[in-house]
Amino acid sequence: MNKPSEPSVNADAFWMQRALQLAYRSYGTTSPNPPVGAVIIRDGRLLGEGRHICAGGPHAERQALADVYARGNSEYLRGATLYVTLEPCSSVGRTPACTDAILSSGITRVVYGAVDPDKRHQGRADALLRAAGITVCPGVERPACELLLRSWAFSVQQGRPWVTAKVATTLDGHLTRRSERFISTAETLRYAHELRLRSDAILIGGGTLRHDNPALTIRTPLSPIPVEKKQPWRIVVTRQPEAVQGRDYRMFCDAAAERSLVVGPVQDWKALLQQLHEERGVVNLMLECGGRLLRRLLEEGLVNEWMQEIAPLLSGGKDAVLPGDSFLPQELRLRVEQCREISGHILLRGILA
Amino acid sequence: MNKPSEPSVNADAFWMQRALQLAYRSYGTTSPNPPVGAVIIRDGRLLGEGRHICAGGPHAERQALADVYARGNSEYLRGATLYVTLEPCSSVGRTPACTDAILSSGITRVVYGAVDPDKRHQGRADALLRAAGITVCPGVERPACELLLRSWAFSVQQGRPWVTAKVATTLDGHLTRRSERFISTAETLRYAHELRLRSDAILIGGGTLRHDNPALTIRTPLSPIPVEKKQPWRIVVTRQPEAVQGRDYRMFCDAAAERSLVVGPVQDWKALLQQLHEERGVVNLMLECGGRLLRRLLEEGLVNEWMQEIAPLLSGGKDAVLPGDSFLPQELRLRVEQCREISGHILLRGILA
Repeated sequence: MNKPSEPSVNADAFWMQRALQLAYRSYGTTSPNPPVGAVIIRDGRLLGEGRHICAGGPHAERQALADVYARGNSEYLRGATLYVTLEPCSSVGRTPACTDAILSSGITRVVYGAVDPDKRHQGRADALLRAAGITVCPGVERPACELLLRSWAFSVQQGRPWVTAKVATTLDGHLTRRSERFISTAETLRYAHELRLRSDAILIGGGTLRHDNPALTIRTPLSPIPVEKKQPWRIVVTRQPEAVQGRDYRMFCDAAAERSLVVGPVQDWKALLQQLHEERGVVNLMLECGGRLLRRLLEEGLVNEWMQEIAPLLSGGKDAVLPGDSFLPQELRLRVEQCREISGHILLRGILA
Repeated sequence: MNKPSEPSVNADAFWMQRALQLAYRSYGTTSPNPPVGAVIIRDGRLLGEGRHICAGGPHAERQALADVYARGNSEYLRGATLYVTLEPCSSVGRTPACTDAILSSGITRVVYGAVDPDKRHQGRADALLRAAGITVCPGVERPACELLLRSWAFSVQQGRPWVTAKVATTLDGHLTRRSERFISTAETLRYAHELRLRSDAILIGGGTLRHDNPALTIRTPLSPIPVEKKQPWRIVVTRQPEAVQGRDYRMFCDAAAERSLVVGPVQDWKALLQQLHEERGVVNLMLECGGRLLRRLLEEGLVNEWMQEIAPLLSGGKDAVLPGDSFLPQELRLRVEQCREISGHILLRGILA
């Protein structure tokens, strides 16, 4: 039997999974910060838990500590263990360093999942905490914690958003149907809205704006929409911004109109993405554009993730996923992470190598 | 308890499933005849079993009877039950009528699955057998028996082969890769060869012949190749037969060269298919052609089944599954019957509505 003060590996994994669940509830609302979850445990009992909810607000560790106090559990803090999905921050940003809060709390053991992707901070928390006699266990459920933080870590390291292309196609690789009917079904559309829920921005081209006049808002996702979630930035990229600006397209007229941007013409796509990251805090960007723009961004190597819905239809037509009769300069391979069937359609999601 | 002479519904289904298994072993070798399986049972014990192996040879019922004699079980025939996947034939063709063999055998109960798709023969066996005091139970495991016979019933009723299109595509609906490498993997190729094993003919266009110089033989199917299986007819359709005839393409030089045909130019596709059915006994025809020919046959409404392998690749290029920038005159919907993942590729098979 393990003593209560030395939890088993299974107990560590169990509580980290709970911290992960909390973190996922924040996915899509924390940018430019990461979604983080934390729980505080003493002798196998939960004293408090918390998650980072939005940039500028308290970090997960401080939320969990506040929860301990709110539940009247503060007397048990001495000797408690903190589980947190990401290495605690050790520097003062918009909020004070979490290591300070831990040091003054009475917590004697810190278990975390992923290391800080910023090389300048990596391991700094470990040193600070250990110097104060706190036991530090890094890397618990690390793959799951890194997956949670994949897009954020990418954006920290590359200075631009993680880009997910979302397409709905026929079996023969076309984006439209003769009948002008949608390719998606009501069921598969919920997956698209779930993706929007997890995104900070959606990018389309002028053609999609003119042809579809989309709202690009989150309406029917699978999960409930958190109160703290803002509608994503809606970005139209066009060669002639003046031709669409101020017109009565839906995204310029609705309640979230102040989060619609018109950009263009674009020479340097990477620079545009960097700008969106720096100025608007965009970590997760979703492409819902037509084939021409999609091809351009694929050719530039700026697309990270690919989500394709394949309807069991043969249509023909001119709206190919990858228009133009030439091969891509470099063939792209999808490392498939998810493939399932929803209402007779195939849903495929993966990472572009 | 049921008396031995009145087997339970479950026993009927059980023995019919065995007859179906036998029949499937003949799938692809019996054309223009159907694959049929039969078992003869008395008091829950198998007396003999058989299947129709190839056109001109004995029918399944006679094979099963012969097996009863070969096993020395003929003394038990009186009062036995015959299970057969298809209504027994009642007319003399290349072989004598099976109803005669049943009447003289001592069998007192006949259970069959599918009815004869030829309206002129439907139910005739029932009347003949019942008049002689034999109990007839039609329609046992009927959906499974009809699925087995689907392509054959179609060819009997329409006078032309059941056509299955087989394509291997990228995610963006292209048939080729920049690198000239195959889209299929070694594993998925076995499924293509399994489909060849079940086909009587494979049709390609002149472009595929010139570009790929394919063998189109059955080499690495999933199931063992039965000794009675001939290589499928290999049919090249081209506007200029004289330009390819007599040239040293693989399919004109190998051991099965006498089963290679060059046809064209084709005005009437339906007539060509009817001719292949009448003159060559083709029931199952497989398309392994390029996009232009595929599109033509889809537009003519001559494709019944669709098998698509989707590789997790984005390629671009000019070899679209459905080339031409126009929509199909009529959008086609696939009723998906099978969707699975093999070595990271999606394999999708279904019926075109």
